Amino acid sequence: MNQDIVLHSSERIDDLLTHELGIIQSDEVFSFSMDAVLLARFANIPRRGRILDMCTGNGVIPLLLTTRSEAVIEGIEIQPRLADMARRSVALNHLQERVKIREGDLRELYLDTGYGVYDAITVNPPYMPLNGSDIKLNRHQAIARHEIHCTLEEVIQSGARLVRPGGKLCMVHKPQRLAEIISLMQKYRLEPKIIRFVHPRLHMEANMVLIECIKDGKPEVRLQPPIIVYDDQGQYCREMMEIYYGSSEGKS
Amino acid sequence: MNQDIVLHSSERIDDLLTHELGIIQSDEVFSFSMDAVLLARFANIPRRGRILDMCTGNGVIPLLLTTRSEAVIEGIEIQPRLADMARRSVALNHLQERVKIREGDLRELYLDTGYGVYDAITVNPPYMPLNGSDIKLNRHQAIARHEIHCTLEEVIQSGARLVRPGGKLCMVHKPQRLAEIISLMQKYRLEPKIIRFVHPRLHMEANMVLIECIKDGKPEVRLQPPIIVYDDQGQYCREMMEIYYGSSEGKS
Repeated sequence: MNQDIVLHSSERIDDLLTHELGIIQSDEVFSFSMDAVLLARFANIPRRGRILDMCTGNGVIPLLLTTRSEAVIEGIEIQPRLADMARRSVALNHLQERVKIREGDLRELYLDTGYGVYDAITVNPPYMPLNGSDIKLNRHQAIARHEIHCTLEEVIQSGARLVRPGGKLCMVHKPQRLAEIISLMQKYRLEPKIIRFVHPRLHMEANMVLIECIKDGKPEVRLQPPIIVYDDQGQYCREMMEIYYGSSEGKS
Repeated sequence: MNQDIVLHSSERIDDLLTHELGIIQSDEVFSFSMDAVLLARFANIPRRGRILDMCTGNGVIPLLLTTRSEAVIEGIEIQPRLADMARRSVALNHLQERVKIREGDLRELYLDTGYGVYDAITVNPPYMPLNGSDIKLNRHQAIARHEIHCTLEEVIQSGARLVRPGGKLCMVHKPQRLAEIISLMQKYRLEPKIIRFVHPRLHMEANMVLIECIKDGKPEVRLQPPIIVYDDQGQYCREMMEIYYGSSEGKS
């Protein structure tokens, strides 16, 4: 561990359970969810090139992607407090050469970078629309979960501007919004190619969807086998063990 | 069995395995698939009112729906040979009062019936686009499987014209075309509400999708548990046994 990393009030360092990675978290500000971990495993990212993680939060997805690619990975986060947490986590893991955290508005990023500059983009956006929702969270959590700073359409439009033709955008979201997501992706010429649903148990409805689309791709969806989180005994299924721990044996 | 039913060359009477229903089939002309049976079970149909089955083929879906509803069920089929098979199957089961088979083009049906007259519509349309596909089937099979007489967009547009506001359209199709299906449904204000995927085995990609949409519905999808056809031993899973035989014990 790097002794120069400053931890602020309420923060702690959690173990990412792979490649000795640590991450700064705070229950009051931001902690990553299973959604981000599943997206980081689902995304077919290039071994080299330039990758962007939009709505990066505390940087969990860029950190996890470093274990699967030698690409330069950028994260963009609109909340200064979270961007700062992400930067300190990058330093904690000595990954400053490979992971760059930008503080800024993803809707304006193309003005800085230009169009079509990324080979792949990942995004775990806010899931809930603003209209009608009664927000009882603190400001940090509300921005991460509700479409306060960007709508679903703005996320998809921004991704479509930033990814190169033939490049990929990978998103995790709620199945409730599947129809909207797919229609918007097609509107911005991000063609859905691989879709996978996550069900808490085999006989329960899905509560998460993973989608990979390709800019200007040919319309043809592969609907992958479901991820079933828990088995009948309430234990993680083998694939979940592999995703979290890198093997089905768990970690002692 | 009704002794007055005429069977033509290559035709046979198969058992629909429920409510003593029989159906006229022919390997040379048309035999129903598992897709139709799953759609007939998936569709949330009203107990009364007026139901339409588009692309009805030999009438398997209207026949199966009579076991779940007292509604008047109409089937429309463009191929005279199949419409005739369907009518003879209806007569075979003495269901002429409840099931009406129309021979005609579903794209023109609204000119006869008017707009928004059906409470629910089911459809198992041709799955394959015409472009580039090498059709090696006979004419009857080709029309049933390829978009020769109507495209996916025409099927969805026709359904949207014929169903009442708040009424349902239920479709079975291939997951490969999911993005196109959902975008077209939203284009014609048929909002996808319930989606279910069918996987041959738990660890295989889906090869079928069942979708229920509501005319002018609120956008919110429920992604139901997957249907897994075969278990690890290659036997039908319990739900498939129930769908085919009405119980998990099978039929002796």
